[in-house]
Amino acid sequence: MKAWQFTTTHEPLVLTEVPEPSAAAGEVVLDMKAAGLCHSDVGLLEDEGWLALLAKQPITIGHENAGVVAEVGEGVTDFKVGDRVGVCPTAEGVGAPGYAFDGGFAPKMAVPAAALVPLPDEVDFRNGAAATDAGMTSYHAMVTRGGAKEGDKVGVIGLGGLGQLGARAAVLLGAEVYVAEVNEKVWPLATEIGATDVKAAITDFEDVEFDVIVDYAGFGTTTDQAISAVRPGGTVVQVGMGKLEATINTRNLITKAVNLLGSVGGTKEDVAGVYALMATGKMNPTITTISFDEIPEGLEKLHRGEIVGRLVASYE
Amino acid sequence: MKAWQFTTTHEPLVLTEVPEPSAAAGEVVLDMKAAGLCHSDVGLLEDEGWLALLAKQPITIGHENAGVVAEVGEGVTDFKVGDRVGVCPTAEGVGAPGYAFDGGFAPKMAVPAAALVPLPDEVDFRNGAAATDAGMTSYHAMVTRGGAKEGDKVGVIGLGGLGQLGARAAVLLGAEVYVAEVNEKVWPLATEIGATDVKAAITDFEDVEFDVIVDYAGFGTTTDQAISAVRPGGTVVQVGMGKLEATINTRNLITKAVNLLGSVGGTKEDVAGVYALMATGKMNPTITTISFDEIPEGLEKLHRGEIVGRLVASYE
Repeated sequence: MKAWQFTTTHEPLVLTEVPEPSAAAGEVVLDMKAAGLCHSDVGLLEDEGWLALLAKQPITIGHENAGVVAEVGEGVTDFKVGDRVGVCPTAEGVGAPGYAFDGGFAPKMAVPAAALVPLPDEVDFRNGAAATDAGMTSYHAMVTRGGAKEGDKVGVIGLGGLGQLGARAAVLLGAEVYVAEVNEKVWPLATEIGATDVKAAITDFEDVEFDVIVDYAGFGTTTDQAISAVRPGGTVVQVGMGKLEATINTRNLITKAVNLLGSVGGTKEDVAGVYALMATGKMNPTITTISFDEIPEGLEKLHRGEIVGRLVASYE
Repeated sequence: MKAWQFTTTHEPLVLTEVPEPSAAAGEVVLDMKAAGLCHSDVGLLEDEGWLALLAKQPITIGHENAGVVAEVGEGVTDFKVGDRVGVCPTAEGVGAPGYAFDGGFAPKMAVPAAALVPLPDEVDFRNGAAATDAGMTSYHAMVTRGGAKEGDKVGVIGLGGLGQLGARAAVLLGAEVYVAEVNEKVWPLATEIGATDVKAAITDFEDVEFDVIVDYAGFGTTTDQAISAVRPGGTVVQVGMGKLEATINTRNLITKAVNLLGSVGGTKEDVAGVYALMATGKMNPTITTISFDEIPEGLEKLHRGEIVGRLVASYE
């Protein structure tokens, strides 16, 4: 079969003839149906710093994957041939596809069953792939770390890719969502996804006692604003890394007994949580679809900032 | 009876004849046995900012109290005459003695039963009083917020009054405790209370993967050092307010998914936790004992920094 392989930094992906994978013990082979393209793929092509993360070179990349189980290895009991699944790229005890082992920019992929998440029939493969990275990460920050739930007053700082998904998840879970976004051009989107109000800064909502605030921006100043705006005993989740430092008022942190929680990646449960919301038909991230052949060109467009929403290669 | 009353800022306490209290519904009257003197009492005498916290003036102060139940009001079922008790100064739904109602610098005190904590027979009244403020606060930070438990690797930053109590509590709970203290003169104390090692900074323990670090100092730099030293998924508790600002590396916070938790005060459960440790005979904070008559003089000594350990007036 032909797979898009990464050879080394500053070189384009190469379409290479590789053997079809088979399922070792504990693994399945997927017929790939959709694979997301990500800014970290662009990073890998541009920056030598990523090479240390690779188990081998060349390697087939692609870490946002969804497909159908085509073969089941010894000892795999939770999945059977024909099952629709997504792949959690940060499953416990399993490396990431495209880094630890060959990823999804290929017609077939072997993957440990421990990384699989059942994909509901109501969710198409493109959404199934897109949900495994940005969807999972934003959901993990909002729900698993932040604990956002029905009736909560939730603040979302930054309405970029992650922030939109996190805000929408909170709305669908029944929270009252307030968005802080410096770019006024994006304000109409906040209303579209069901936010109660949108302002430039989270501290502008002077009368709102936030239970949870997730900072998807991380501008250095936003962390402290969130600590200031959250209610006593409330939770601030930091996931955005716009800047690598923040100065915080520790008096506020202490006297209000605030929980400031770092959040990175997610788990299979988070992917399943996103799938459950998508299955309601009410969570529809913007997706730009390309074909398998267009993957290298797609990465270039992503690099140039020409893509709206998530970029997914559909193999169907 | 004669009570030490606060009239207003910059005036010494006045020994005043006041009526003996009686127990309203939900209250008990205590025969006071010991009352701690605290730096916040000194603050009240020196700084007008505290006046806003007082329910009335003049008022009998004293918020670290232990005694014996002498009278029980209507509806009180959990306590009876003769019970040895301590008073939680931050019990939920109850104001603080000496602020919301007359406190313990008097032979008797009326107090809502909701603030009482049973005092084990093995714990004397002076320890019972001393445990209600610094003991509770340090325990809350270490155990309730930090979750320190048997087998954990625990870091303690700052071996002052709170830090000593927190470190000792962690040792008694079976944790492996490492102390960071800039003042080398205090280092022998770390060994005395059972710490495994003591160095100047928490980042000096390069080979230790901390599960929990409690920053009892709060020097501005110590918060970030704790975030740097704690293991991925670990917890940093901020309770010390040496400075009111800290600059933190958010990249570390996020990629290690650190929990940075502010901690203030405590609950009845924390007081009970300290009493349980004291009852083993292995938690013995240094206490300087004075008589009821010496309370004003004691506050002056506290102000001048002449007191070693906690200062407690014993009425026995």
